[in-house]
Amino acid sequence: MNAIFRALLLSAVMGCACVTMAQSAGTNAATSAYTADGRLQFPQQYRQWIYLTSGFDMSYSAGAAGAHHLFDNLFVNPAAYRAFQSTGTWPEGTVLVLELRRASAHDSLNRQGAYQAADVVGVEVHSKDSARFKGSWGFFSFGGADAHGAAKMLPLSADCYACHAAHGAVDSTFVQFYPTLLPIARSKGTLSASYR
Amino acid sequence: MNAIFRALLLSAVMGCACVTMAQSAGTNAATSAYTADGRLQFPQQYRQWIYLTSGFDMSYSAGAAGAHHLFDNLFVNPAAYRAFQSTGTWPEGTVLVLELRRASAHDSLNRQGAYQAADVVGVEVHSKDSARFKGSWGFFSFGGADAHGAAKMLPLSADCYACHAAHGAVDSTFVQFYPTLLPIARSKGTLSASYR
Repeated sequence: MNAIFRALLLSAVMGCACVTMAQSAGTNAATSAYTADGRLQFPQQYRQWIYLTSGFDMSYSAGAAGAHHLFDNLFVNPAAYRAFQSTGTWPEGTVLVLELRRASAHDSLNRQGAYQAADVVGVEVHSKDSARFKGSWGFFSFGGADAHGAAKMLPLSADCYACHAAHGAVDSTFVQFYPTLLPIARSKGTLSASYR
Repeated sequence: MNAIFRALLLSAVMGCACVTMAQSAGTNAATSAYTADGRLQFPQQYRQWIYLTSGFDMSYSAGAAGAHHLFDNLFVNPAAYRAFQSTGTWPEGTVLVLELRRASAHDSLNRQGAYQAADVVGVEVHSKDSARFKGSWGFFSFGGADAHGAAKMLPLSADCYACHAAHGAVDSTFVQFYPTLLPIARSKGTLSASYR
């Protein structure tokens, strides 16, 4: 199974792998832009947003591992990060961006473990905009030909919506995997009943 | 070998593991602060700087792996990041911060791979300030009792200096492991002779 297929599997088929990133109108009008037919423009500046965490070969299913190792890196728009610091939850306009990047192991210097390669195999977005999305959040997946274009919202029937709603530690997002935010949510009392 | 010992081994004994982060007087006066006797104050805001990359269980030696898996996350002050975008190298005042964080594998949801835990087992800083450091760069290691205090510069005899100077792709820093910066260095012609 190649890395791109695995990324697609992570994002589109299994759904839940699309960790959360959302952005919206209102407080962060400049953060996300939509086409006239509702497709989300690729968030060009996400690598300059606030970094939340990375995973390595994470999967929510017990199936066979992919042929290539993958990192996932998660970013959020700065205004949403600041709001979370003070409230323990996400404001309207939150945009979470999950970057799936191939891992490399071999280099003249590195003898063990893995570092991140140039190949981005997918970018997923979780955007909170209650005026735009039923259930407040929309998921988008960029990859392949759409890599830096505009992406249609994944349909509400995609697994990611139900999985995030059922298992997200805070407001349909997997804050349980964001080490600097989980203690804030705990102290602010914003952890979901299902996570607690 | 526990994670803390392993992190210390990475940073202090093997030296080269202290990936680069430097910061200085001048353009980024607010980014780093030193005590009267030259110790670097812990960079409290580094998680809001620009993220460069993460590694998983990286090591520059072929010894036995640690008992715990570790992520390393690398950040740089925003002014230095912007300068690198336009020049392909680091300005005076660059501060690179390497965070070593324990990995977790077990969660109600995650079935494979690793995510980042709350435990930070060490923070290392690589700071470029030619007026302050012979050879332009200073390394600092925060951990244990010094975790959020001030750290003395590692002596120039520490292995990290020679290893970074010999193997760094750009100006004593391991840009070969920073996937968004390596193409910029290549296009700007700033790769070191030893790396080329």
